[in-house]
Parts: sequence; structure tokens; C-alpha cells
Amino acid sequence: MLIHARLIADTHFLGRFETSLLLLHRNAVVPWFIVVPDSVETELLDLPRPVREAVLEESAQVATFVQSYFGSSKVNFAAIGNIVPQLHLHVVGRDPGDNCWPAPIWGNLTEDKQYPASECEAICAALVADYGLQRDAGRV
Amino acid sequence: MLIHARLIADTHFLGRFETSLLLLHRNAVVPWFIVVPDSVETELLDLPRPVREAVLEESAQVATFVQSYFGSSKVNFAAIGNIVPQLHLHVVGRDPGDNCWPAPIWGNLTEDKQYPASECEAICAALVADYGLQRDAGRV
Repeated sequence: MLIHARLIADTHFLGRFETSLLLLHRNAVVPWFIVVPDSVETELLDLPRPVREAVLEESAQVATFVQSYFGSSKVNFAAIGNIVPQLHLHVVGRDPGDNCWPAPIWGNLTEDKQYPASECEAICAALVADYGLQRDAGRV
Repeated sequence: MLIHARLIADTHFLGRFETSLLLLHRNAVVPWFIVVPDSVETELLDLPRPVREAVLEESAQVATFVQSYFGSSKVNFAAIGNIVPQLHLHVVGRDPGDNCWPAPIWGNLTEDKQYPASECEAICAALVADYGLQRDAGRV
């Protein structure tokens, strides 16, 4: 499966679900995951219904993880894709008082923080252990 | 079904699907629809799966309508809810060159245009005729 160069540049690769890949945005200021369905369709709402439902279920797993692991009180979920045409879904943990609350994150984060490598690994391990993520299988 | 006062203030009421109400944002600069599921859950990805699937199907109907009626080349779909806690889903028609392309619309629209009453009525009539919207049934 191919991934758009901009997504590769902006994220850490975490692994694969049945229907999509899971990426973690490099900016650690908020917990920002990106679900990339294995599809040539560019619109979430144009996906065939069974694919859409599988992708939503995988996104729901990520949302549950974000709430549990980061303690986020709110999850923003969006398919935008005005810049990167490849279909990708943002699953973002939010909290009152975070870097740009209550504004959406896109274009509004004023800080850039990196994850330590150990933190990426811990996130990946937790997703593999409890949320059905497969590590590296089918890695591009 | 109750609707948050901020949503009422910002939108025209269009009608009802099986699982959600459909609102049209008053700012006509972009085609901006808001799907409001009949649920006390505030997170899209925490909805029970059958409800989530019904809501997505109704959102997909709206997206198809936006592409067909307005000719939008792109649809942005998002559950944000950082300001209005009641669960609501944005279905927004986008085009290169529109008011704030490629930025997301939230907080970025620089113009405010109103729909003529006849245009609201035409939109509603088209959704009722071809997309399963029920007019005024269960109006709050």
C-alpha cells in the first residue's frame, strides 16, 4: 500500500489494522492519530458501506485508545483532505486548555513538540496489545 | 428532540432523517450542512455501532447531495464539538478557490453570505424528493 509523501513526512508509522494503516503525527502537542484506509477512494462518505464501516470501527478503536491512554476528554474526528488527496482520517485527543482549544488543530497549533522514541514505542505496544493493531505487517 | 441554542442560532432547520436532524448553516459562502444525531452521546466514535452506521449513511446521503446539487469537488466531514457539546457532524462542500481553500472552514471563513429564502426551500425540496429527508416531521 502506498502512502502520500506528505503523510510520511509528517508522521510516525505505527502499524496496520485490517482495513487501514495507523500513523501518529510527529507533533506531540496533542495526541494526533491518522487512519489511512487501503482504498483509492478519496472521500470517506463515498466509500462502499462495508469498507466505511470497517474504517469507522478501526477509528473507534483509536478513539478509545486516545481516551484511555492520554485521558483526552474529547475526540475530534475529521476527513478533510484539501491538501493531501489520499483519504486519511484524523483522530485527535483534545482537552480544554490544550494548545489551541477550542479551535480545531489544523493550522492552529502554535507549538511543535517531538515524541521521545520510547514514547512512540510505548504507544505502538499498547495499541498492539489491546486494540488489534498489527506491528509492521505490510509495512510500505 | 432538543437542539443546542447555538446550533439553532447558526442554522436553518431542513428536516429529519430516521436517526438525525439536518441543519443548513446560515453562511452560504460554502455549502455547509450539519447532521445532528438523536442521541445523548457526545462522541461520534462512542456511538453504538448500529447508530453510528445509520448516522454515517445519512451523512453520506448529504455528501452525495452536496456533490450533485452544488457540484462540490470535495467534501469535508468532521465531528469536532469543542464549543457545542451536542453531537453534530459537519458535511461541507469544498472547492479549490473557495473562500478559505485549502484551510478548513472552522474559524477561517472571511465572508458571510445569506441564502435567499427561495434557495433554502429549493435545497429542502431536493433533499425530500431524492435523499430521504422528511420535512418538518418531529420539528422541535
